[in-house]
Amino acid sequence: MEALGPDRITSVGADDYHRYDRQERKSLPFTPLHPKCNYIDIMEQHLQHLSLGQPILKPVYDHDTGQLGRPEYVEPREFVIVEGLLPLHTAVSRACFDITVFLDPPEEIRIAWKLRRDIKKRGYTEEQVRAELEKREPESAEFIRPQRAHADIVVRFSPIEERGESPEDPLSAYLLLRPTISHPDLVKVLGDDTREAMHLQLRRDADGKPVDSVHIHSYADRKDTKKVEQAIWDELGIDEPVPETLGMIDPDTRDEPLALTQLILLYHLIQARESHVRPERR
Amino acid sequence: MEALGPDRITSVGADDYHRYDRQERKSLPFTPLHPKCNYIDIMEQHLQHLSLGQPILKPVYDHDTGQLGRPEYVEPREFVIVEGLLPLHTAVSRACFDITVFLDPPEEIRIAWKLRRDIKKRGYTEEQVRAELEKREPESAEFIRPQRAHADIVVRFSPIEERGESPEDPLSAYLLLRPTISHPDLVKVLGDDTREAMHLQLRRDADGKPVDSVHIHSYADRKDTKKVEQAIWDELGIDEPVPETLGMIDPDTRDEPLALTQLILLYHLIQARESHVRPERR
Repeated sequence: MEALGPDRITSVGADDYHRYDRQERKSLPFTPLHPKCNYIDIMEQHLQHLSLGQPILKPVYDHDTGQLGRPEYVEPREFVIVEGLLPLHTAVSRACFDITVFLDPPEEIRIAWKLRRDIKKRGYTEEQVRAELEKREPESAEFIRPQRAHADIVVRFSPIEERGESPEDPLSAYLLLRPTISHPDLVKVLGDDTREAMHLQLRRDADGKPVDSVHIHSYADRKDTKKVEQAIWDELGIDEPVPETLGMIDPDTRDEPLALTQLILLYHLIQARESHVRPERR
Repeated sequence: MEALGPDRITSVGADDYHRYDRQERKSLPFTPLHPKCNYIDIMEQHLQHLSLGQPILKPVYDHDTGQLGRPEYVEPREFVIVEGLLPLHTAVSRACFDITVFLDPPEEIRIAWKLRRDIKKRGYTEEQVRAELEKREPESAEFIRPQRAHADIVVRFSPIEERGESPEDPLSAYLLLRPTISHPDLVKVLGDDTREAMHLQLRRDADGKPVDSVHIHSYADRKDTKKVEQAIWDELGIDEPVPETLGMIDPDTRDEPLALTQLILLYHLIQARESHVRPERR
């Protein structure tokens, strides 16, 4: 959002499509991860409207109070970014997107992130969060993780276990780039030597299907990442510099794996936009 | 709704599409009658979904509190009935309906009805209601009344002024049937003698366009209304008796003008349904 400018972006949280409030869910046999706990058909409908440039009256779920409130009028801007638990659950929903991304952290990292957010931002205790995670696990396995197979890009920030790294170390980025969309040509700038801080490998995913696998280690040198960055950016052929906000964790800290991951997502956002504005170039 | 059975009907209040709550409206230069005060585009969108058999997540305006609340999942049943201030305001909205009806009581009667409802049911004082009516009048003239021209049927319950009747007398029904849809053949059962308690006249509306004008006086004899009733019902060719609830104001009071008005609306609802279920008959 920072790279493109927030005023060019409409951001939609798919978790606003919760069917029940927190109180009602207490007596229900499923968690918010279950499609039955969400208005999936309305989410599909709204994604279709947004993808056609039409406004929606979006439901609003308040994570602080756990209540469903007054809906919100939302118009699609130049870019629509949708994030949430189930946006890749159905074919109709997936068909509304130009690019789909699945965030796939190792369980250990995911739990640490969720603990931090829910305790700090949503006022839960650690036991409450862990109990909820346990309760959600079967539905996570049944409905959330299968969406990974439908993503054009799978992003995994992870320590390198073979090197004995821990979650407290700066994380590497593992990107799976599926041939379901056209990615920037990285073969020109990345070798396949796994001893390099950055490398690209042609691999098979767990399901046997071919993917490009990109690895960017946290100690990757800025001099090298800059070359990759420039190659990706040049492919876009646009008349602007690479946004300086990429990879910035705070004003003094730039994270190279994060920067290149964001750049690849940005590449696709800009490409998608160009293909809508000038479809003859597609 | 009683005649068809409430479980066959989805009822939608178009006033739920208010854009602002009561508090917000206080600082705005228009009343809820103004299209700007309503999500007209979302109403159009939702009416299209319902007319295609698709569900909607309908906004909810609470007339008691004046607040906008948690939206409501609504699925279209066999019949969808929409009532409200602006459903005939735009062409897209009108195109979603099989039959459109405009209620056109004389101002005196309308004010009496509104006073009664707003004082009894919504807790306003008479002065408040009258002040609001005055404030709304220019927007009523600009946006509400012009919708009359787009209705297939205009219904007016009114005392007969030429006979010196007052609003406290039982009201006559004046029905304008426009040739925009196919009405039951009333020429067979109604004459054009205005001295009769029921009559049918070929007339020009205020805009010069031809209409059928039906008048049913409150003293119309049940024997005569029964003939008209049967003729209309027979045209439907369905295997059920005329619903007994028509015209019932309370369990002991049947109002003949109301009964025949309701029957004509019912006729159209059933015809419209048949034409969707068996379009080859249309």
